[in-house]
Amino acid sequence: MTRPPTLPILTNRADTLKYVDGVVQVLDRRKLPEVVTFVPCHTYQDVAQAIIEMVIQGAPPLAYAAGYGLALAAREFRGLAVSEQRVKLAEAHQVLRSTRPTGADIFPLMDRALAIALSCVDSGADAEAAVVAFVDQQIRAGDRAARLSGYHAAQLLEDGDRILTHCFAGAALNYMLYFAVKAGKRIELFPTETRPYLQGARLTAAQAKEIGVPVTLITDNMPGYLFYRGMITKYVTAADSITLDGHISNKIGTFQYAVLAHQFGVPFIVLGYDGPDPDRPNAASIPIEERNPEEIFYCRGVRTAVDGIRGYYPAFDITPPQFVSVIATERGLFSPWNIAQYFAAPEPADE
Amino acid sequence: MTRPPTLPILTNRADTLKYVDGVVQVLDRRKLPEVVTFVPCHTYQDVAQAIIEMVIQGAPPLAYAAGYGLALAAREFRGLAVSEQRVKLAEAHQVLRSTRPTGADIFPLMDRALAIALSCVDSGADAEAAVVAFVDQQIRAGDRAARLSGYHAAQLLEDGDRILTHCFAGAALNYMLYFAVKAGKRIELFPTETRPYLQGARLTAAQAKEIGVPVTLITDNMPGYLFYRGMITKYVTAADSITLDGHISNKIGTFQYAVLAHQFGVPFIVLGYDGPDPDRPNAASIPIEERNPEEIFYCRGVRTAVDGIRGYYPAFDITPPQFVSVIATERGLFSPWNIAQYFAAPEPADE
Repeated sequence: MTRPPTLPILTNRADTLKYVDGVVQVLDRRKLPEVVTFVPCHTYQDVAQAIIEMVIQGAPPLAYAAGYGLALAAREFRGLAVSEQRVKLAEAHQVLRSTRPTGADIFPLMDRALAIALSCVDSGADAEAAVVAFVDQQIRAGDRAARLSGYHAAQLLEDGDRILTHCFAGAALNYMLYFAVKAGKRIELFPTETRPYLQGARLTAAQAKEIGVPVTLITDNMPGYLFYRGMITKYVTAADSITLDGHISNKIGTFQYAVLAHQFGVPFIVLGYDGPDPDRPNAASIPIEERNPEEIFYCRGVRTAVDGIRGYYPAFDITPPQFVSVIATERGLFSPWNIAQYFAAPEPADE
Repeated sequence: MTRPPTLPILTNRADTLKYVDGVVQVLDRRKLPEVVTFVPCHTYQDVAQAIIEMVIQGAPPLAYAAGYGLALAAREFRGLAVSEQRVKLAEAHQVLRSTRPTGADIFPLMDRALAIALSCVDSGADAEAAVVAFVDQQIRAGDRAARLSGYHAAQLLEDGDRILTHCFAGAALNYMLYFAVKAGKRIELFPTETRPYLQGARLTAAQAKEIGVPVTLITDNMPGYLFYRGMITKYVTAADSITLDGHISNKIGTFQYAVLAHQFGVPFIVLGYDGPDPDRPNAASIPIEERNPEEIFYCRGVRTAVDGIRGYYPAFDITPPQFVSVIATERGLFSPWNIAQYFAAPEPADE
């Protein structure tokens, strides 16, 4: 180590998402790392659009943004009659909740935010302030889940590990790398670039570099060859959703690298944050978002494909438990086969 | 079928590579399909550069270009003393032969071209004309191998097949699709875009579309999910090299999709053109080209990655025979386990 590790911008969510005076400021992840700029959202529809257009991504962060979106709605409708406020808030809740289907965090968060807002409307309390306070608390809890999830994953890393990762696994990845480096483990990260949005080439690579982990970028067609050559010792990703029976859903591609890791005996560590989704019993309960195929015909705004063809863009895939080695959560390490026991595990002590 | 299938530009190599009056004209595949333009090469060094920079790609086509390069050298040095011509031609041979290591066609072709050139120099015959005639004959033989290889592969396709392919498998792919469509088989093609050069999104997609096969483009991280969903019934690629013990080398990524195809019971058909490489007994005899990692930091000239990181760009990988179902060659179908018997097989009858 030539310098102590630092924690980069995508670690604490309050650095990337703010609710200030009736405006939700969303860090534009599409422009990172070259440009650090915030997209101001003045209405809940603006927030919904920012989520759909991937200004913000990752299951927890986009859920927090949606929550703040409901606070904007509460502010916008506060002058209306109670019955009208109730209808409008339910509409806003529905619009924000329908932005992206696969990540599970948005659903319980939005449902709780709506209940809080409606209760305030009924009692004449400040719904906007109550929803903002709720989301603030969710963000603090989420940051804590990310830190502990990353901490537990870091315990699994060994000196000399060469880690394949896909997409951007979020704050828990930053913490995992941070704690491993802080413990003096020499590790290297091999992010896939992750087409079409290049989260690996931009977000993951930039964050790891800032933490002080050597980064070697590869394209999405290379992991198999790296496994074949014995160049990879661990495979780590996040999960947009974890079912009670141990299936995980994550960025498209996660599954094919999990199969390859299994084939070559490389452990697959899933950063599980605050555990499985209680409303999702099995793989059939995960809706896989299919995005506009036009999005895969471009790369950073430049056309990459010939005209006159179709495209297919499932944004996520599902990895069955037999390909997952361990899920590192806020409450410690679980096998995918007993991940449902997360809910019976004790609340975490700090690391 | 609403129209009879046609054969597009990358089918007959003489349409893409010409030797005219001391200039080698090389179709610029990097600009296809939007722009059809030829890069004129006036010296053998120009030809070597065009091969290195992937103006032309594919093991047979780049070998033909290198052969014409030696004809340029013979023309350039014809006024020199015989001993000097011999030295200069050997130098040119070495430069052209060293352009790209993985595809095997270039080596025997260049060695034979040099022998012809030297023999002409010694006897006072026209070395340029003799080398051009030799390469012309090699192109005709290669076109025939592509047509028959594609024909035999087409016999394996079934009505309703949904075919995954990676990179651009060349003229044999065009012929395979052409013969299948001509026989009334309804097939669909799913090309990976194939980063970093996007041969799938540009070359494969454009050729298949012109032949009349419906194309659905996917990114390189998607094939696993398509297998998982049962959307793929065949996997087809070319091979830049086939060893005598049934290993194949092809564009990076070929291996990982072969492992996934095997996992899901999907046959992997390799378009084997004119068979295995007699000088390559096993996987250890295939040198894997590692290209400049800078090339994966860009997509069509636009920067895709953060600065200050490393990259790794192996351009090819190796697939062991246990993941290959069948190799379709000019002389018919072979198992990877008996591909060495190709040399004992009878010369092909026309299809």
